[in-house]
Amino acid sequence: MAKPIRFALLGCGTVGAGVVDLVGRNAKYLTARIGAPLELAHVLVRDPSRARGVALDPAIVTNDAARVLDDASIDVVVEAMGGEDPAGSFLERALRARKSVVTANKALLAMRGASLLQLAAEHRADIAFEASVGGAIPIVRTLRDHLAADWVRSMRGIVNGTCNYILTRMRDEAAPFATVLEAAQSLGYAEAEPSLDVDGHDAAHKLCVLALLGFGAVVRPDEVPTEGIRAIEPIDHRFAARFGYAIKHLAVGRESGTPPDVRLDLRVHPALVPARAPLASVDGVLNAIDILAEGAGAQVLVGRGAGSLPTAVSVVADLVDVARARRAGVPGLLTQGLDVARRPLATQGSHEAPWYLRVRVADRPGVLAQIAGALGQNEVSIEQLVQEGANGRRTADAVTDGDTRVIVMLTHTASERDVRAALRTIDQMSFVGEKTMAMRIEA
Amino acid sequence: MAKPIRFALLGCGTVGAGVVDLVGRNAKYLTARIGAPLELAHVLVRDPSRARGVALDPAIVTNDAARVLDDASIDVVVEAMGGEDPAGSFLERALRARKSVVTANKALLAMRGASLLQLAAEHRADIAFEASVGGAIPIVRTLRDHLAADWVRSMRGIVNGTCNYILTRMRDEAAPFATVLEAAQSLGYAEAEPSLDVDGHDAAHKLCVLALLGFGAVVRPDEVPTEGIRAIEPIDHRFAARFGYAIKHLAVGRESGTPPDVRLDLRVHPALVPARAPLASVDGVLNAIDILAEGAGAQVLVGRGAGSLPTAVSVVADLVDVARARRAGVPGLLTQGLDVARRPLATQGSHEAPWYLRVRVADRPGVLAQIAGALGQNEVSIEQLVQEGANGRRTADAVTDGDTRVIVMLTHTASERDVRAALRTIDQMSFVGEKTMAMRIEA
Repeated sequence: MAKPIRFALLGCGTVGAGVVDLVGRNAKYLTARIGAPLELAHVLVRDPSRARGVALDPAIVTNDAARVLDDASIDVVVEAMGGEDPAGSFLERALRARKSVVTANKALLAMRGASLLQLAAEHRADIAFEASVGGAIPIVRTLRDHLAADWVRSMRGIVNGTCNYILTRMRDEAAPFATVLEAAQSLGYAEAEPSLDVDGHDAAHKLCVLALLGFGAVVRPDEVPTEGIRAIEPIDHRFAARFGYAIKHLAVGRESGTPPDVRLDLRVHPALVPARAPLASVDGVLNAIDILAEGAGAQVLVGRGAGSLPTAVSVVADLVDVARARRAGVPGLLTQGLDVARRPLATQGSHEAPWYLRVRVADRPGVLAQIAGALGQNEVSIEQLVQEGANGRRTADAVTDGDTRVIVMLTHTASERDVRAALRTIDQMSFVGEKTMAMRIEA
Repeated sequence: MAKPIRFALLGCGTVGAGVVDLVGRNAKYLTARIGAPLELAHVLVRDPSRARGVALDPAIVTNDAARVLDDASIDVVVEAMGGEDPAGSFLERALRARKSVVTANKALLAMRGASLLQLAAEHRADIAFEASVGGAIPIVRTLRDHLAADWVRSMRGIVNGTCNYILTRMRDEAAPFATVLEAAQSLGYAEAEPSLDVDGHDAAHKLCVLALLGFGAVVRPDEVPTEGIRAIEPIDHRFAARFGYAIKHLAVGRESGTPPDVRLDLRVHPALVPARAPLASVDGVLNAIDILAEGAGAQVLVGRGAGSLPTAVSVVADLVDVARARRAGVPGLLTQGLDVARRPLATQGSHEAPWYLRVRVADRPGVLAQIAGALGQNEVSIEQLVQEGANGRRTADAVTDGDTRVIVMLTHTASERDVRAALRTIDQMSFVGEKTMAMRIEA
């Protein structure tokens, strides 16, 4: 029998417990694939007395990080704690000790992915992170290995299950954001403090990981223009459907410009996607990523974006990869030669797209002319326009104030800068009751 | 500079030329990922004088197989010839000489996949075959590596681009099979001898490869009940849409029964899939595979199923994997421990599903009663029924013979055996003009 590959688990919440479960149930097959048995040597948790829902030898459960990280017999560290620190310093310590690392931590990778890759290369250790984006979807493997000989031109992902769940229920139940958020929280699909998800930050983290692999680009989350879904109302879903679209919260990365001035346009925001596009039918907690690559053409990967076993499947796949490499005596090959660097980013506001605009105004003569005027002065032309609530035609969505109407417009393709300039003017008009809702239309 | 990894290319048609193109354009990045440069050492073709559309040093192009296969300096053989022989004997020879092998050859893998895997294991060589199923879709990698810790319960694939292209155009243009086949042939989407594609054999080959990886099952193509798309008429697309379905040619693999009597139900046939299912919107030459796994849940992978660069992207990804392993001195890890064996197959006819039935009958009293009677006697109950062409209501699809009408039925769930028995009775009725068209409905 080959010497076991000993691994330590940092964190034993939903994902960690799933890892313990899968490794246990699959021991025989995993041993054959790796060429040696896997041995769970340590489980690092904050509270060793807490029940984990999986069978764990109490002797290996500890809250003593040094005991785990200083154990020279450990081959692989699997991190399922989340958060930038202490997870980051733990993994750096592990890599410096030439231990291979598997992590699901998108926040950490978004902030320090490039330096962790470099550290792994310096110490001939592997770092693998399939579970950091898209849960069970094999997106990291696809970008890292499958498209090795290809050039990714664009990626668009539904990568935050909480946003997608909320948007799907808002649409299906014509329910407001706050109501659905509360329901999602009580079901465990949203955190008590939901900002990381619903304001788009989690998706921005994941986009940084995707950009690292797909574009070889080192990008900080604070460089990604990020919008969440709080401003979306049921009326927006209704209008989107009427125009033949679905509203999805997207992480978008795209090469823009022509050589030699190719820039990366990275953004996180809700957008209207055509109802027949593959992403439009990705509902609920599902995630999906579409990739346009020069050689392979268009690809779409859809799957469970979160959850104990779906995420653990990705973690254990990575664990098999790095364990096999250690067993064979060749750790460090997984990310060898991955060429990551700073790349020029598109100027903010330079992006061009058609837009969806929803303005809520007091019902006065001349309102529409002034709005159209502000758009026209900024080179934004209206492709379609619908007014509701005017002339006694009132809908369930219209604000109950009898003097309010809603104007929804789709514009022709316009630069974001021009649209924002027009909106600044419009939002200062005396008859405009609230900030105009503006979403890009993704073809 | 590290010693180059020398590879030979067997066959230089569409896929082979794409491989040469990608390896050339990507040389620097591939060298970094592999840890050594790739060197194309031989190109084996039938006619060395023929132009290939890519820059090739004439000195390396040969029709002398021995010169290629007996070259001890070759690390990897990339096979893009197709067909069971001589490709099979060439690859066996290469593996016996401890060369690693990359192949896109589904026919060969369907017939001899298990023995090639074994040969590779015995000689510590790698065998990789991402391009054999789904063109650019990373399905092999997903089943082999990503779902290593998971259990696949079912797979359903649109894996033949020719069938999908023909079905899509038949639907969109309300055109008959023969017309669309001819158009597809003139566009190069169908072969002059189309049987391999349109009769389902190519899909059956691919299903055998999927079964090998997804279920660890060694299955011969002749064990897979296989139906093609020749019997489908435009009227079937119209009725399918009316009932909320799309017609797709599927390769289906599913575990059926309960432990300990779990059997594999493998089939290739056209089927009705719900219009909202992800597979329903996969049109034209696209391929797609949906996978239901115990841990990961449902996944769908969509992409280009054929073409020079899409297929070459998959081939070169494999080439990078096996070249990196050779460079590191550890070939043979890729498929190490893959557990393949004969598995019990479901009894033919035991499959249960709702069915779509289309009967064309002479317009006589009592016809419907007799048909319903034959179904009822065989425990097949009708869920929906539509008659067209009767009582002067004639449609474009109805045969011009004034006495003909079309009866379309959806049944409740029934066993295939019972449906077939009912159809045997129905097809012998004097007023039934032609073989009843029968397709399963896949939920």
